Amino acid sequence: MPLLVVGSVAFDSIRTPHGQAEEVLGGSATFLSLAASWFAPVRVVAVVGEDFSDRHLGVFRARSIDTAGLERVPGRTFRWRGEYVGDMQEARTLETQLNVFAEFAPKIPPAYHDSEYVFLANIDPILQLHVRRQLPKARLVGLDSMNFWIDGKPAELKKVLAEVDILFVNEREARTLSGHPNLKKAAESLQKLGLRAVVIKRGEHGATLFAGNSIFSAPAYPLDKVCDPTGAGDSFAGGFMGHLARTGDTSDVNLRRALVYGSVMASFAVEEFGLVRLLSLTSEEIDTRYREFKTLTHFDA
Amino acid sequence: MPLLVVGSVAFDSIRTPHGQAEEVLGGSATFLSLAASWFAPVRVVAVVGEDFSDRHLGVFRARSIDTAGLERVPGRTFRWRGEYVGDMQEARTLETQLNVFAEFAPKIPPAYHDSEYVFLANIDPILQLHVRRQLPKARLVGLDSMNFWIDGKPAELKKVLAEVDILFVNEREARTLSGHPNLKKAAESLQKLGLRAVVIKRGEHGATLFAGNSIFSAPAYPLDKVCDPTGAGDSFAGGFMGHLARTGDTSDVNLRRALVYGSVMASFAVEEFGLVRLLSLTSEEIDTRYREFKTLTHFDA
Repeated sequence: MPLLVVGSVAFDSIRTPHGQAEEVLGGSATFLSLAASWFAPVRVVAVVGEDFSDRHLGVFRARSIDTAGLERVPGRTFRWRGEYVGDMQEARTLETQLNVFAEFAPKIPPAYHDSEYVFLANIDPILQLHVRRQLPKARLVGLDSMNFWIDGKPAELKKVLAEVDILFVNEREARTLSGHPNLKKAAESLQKLGLRAVVIKRGEHGATLFAGNSIFSAPAYPLDKVCDPTGAGDSFAGGFMGHLARTGDTSDVNLRRALVYGSVMASFAVEEFGLVRLLSLTSEEIDTRYREFKTLTHFDA
Repeated sequence: MPLLVVGSVAFDSIRTPHGQAEEVLGGSATFLSLAASWFAPVRVVAVVGEDFSDRHLGVFRARSIDTAGLERVPGRTFRWRGEYVGDMQEARTLETQLNVFAEFAPKIPPAYHDSEYVFLANIDPILQLHVRRQLPKARLVGLDSMNFWIDGKPAELKKVLAEVDILFVNEREARTLSGHPNLKKAAESLQKLGLRAVVIKRGEHGATLFAGNSIFSAPAYPLDKVCDPTGAGDSFAGGFMGHLARTGDTSDVNLRRALVYGSVMASFAVEEFGLVRLLSLTSEEIDTRYREFKTLTHFDA
């Protein structure tokens, strides 16, 4: 099954203790699409500016991503500049230029209206709801948000949460949105907004899935070197949703596998700057790392 | 097999979002001993003051802990006052009175010299080494430390690490002691100091074991309410070492089980203020929660 991804395309300038990269292709829709493309056909809806070249388009094409929904408009593409220091737990944003992304109004091509698997990356919740309502056949819709919308448009965000299936948030976002400092209570309270499941992304600490009454936790893959954490969360969501779209199985058991595939893709994404690693993977590497997660977490009862 | 625990006994005054407790029995040796007592016979070496009453002694006796090594000297017992706010990730120390603990020189009773399982809780590394060398039959020695010693006596700490088996540290301590911001590299570098294994304690994010070339991660048990995090790390070490002492099995496979039992005991410890929960447990509750860790982490390959 194809996965429809709606989000941002950006040019990122990044400095980490391991080096720097200037104006490399990034953005939530890009990381999501590339990570998911290892599992299922991907359709992407995003906006880019006149500076988005055929070379950039070639990155999506190289992974056979359907770019009919990639709208090019006058102006410059979204730009983000940030740095990570020390243990690289958090990005420090140095500059954000929304550019054409400021006026992003996602247009879903008619050919995408039959999409059953959908991911709404971090954009205005009003736009997320608008997209959601154009997709009557959606079987499973994942959604990401951020503190900017949680603080700024909580009512609008809760409205769209009632119409999607899985929320992906980090710990702080879960606490802020729910008002509960306790993470379990926070997740359970978010589930009650009408969600099938809540996935808490914990960065280098892994991820936790709350689905029904069941909780599943997986660690992050222990890497020798985290080169660039940018896009880790989106690559996680891409692997997660890509696995669900590939299998067409939305059972709780398969959500657990999806969380591990998400962790696998996030672990690859951060090994190199930008998209380098997501473009140079093999399916064998993905399968091997999935099995390594089993070894990493196995203990005898 | 008995487990020998060397550490502190304290009276803790604690404030958390869920309440407060004044001068309740605590300290590393206390939490360790009580947690381990659910698995194996425990021998405790620590120092207390004249204000340590029969009522306090009764807490150890209630768990059949051998207190021949509990030395009572003139003066007041070690006191600590701290608080936890918000998500309770870190204790804020408001007051420390070392009192009799300032001059602690652990005396190992002759009857303890045959101890095969030993835990050296967080005390001066010079004292830890001194104790270690009095225990020629020790098969497995665990050791905890803290930034105070890592910063103040790194050479002495590294000297004792070469003569023990398992180091228990939190992430920040591992990074500081090794000089590596990357946690995997940090742990591997610490292993090379002569350790059999390194256990990284991650609080609400669980724990990771580095043993030989193998890595094992377990999440923390998701609790509805963390009442008081004091003693969580020591309860973890108590469950870990207690399980090893109980089974007499120091294989890598059993170290993984030990880590889960450690996580189980830490999860119970924080459910109530002070020692309340560690005193009111049952073996069935421990076994049930161990199995719940299996459910929490299981996914199909």
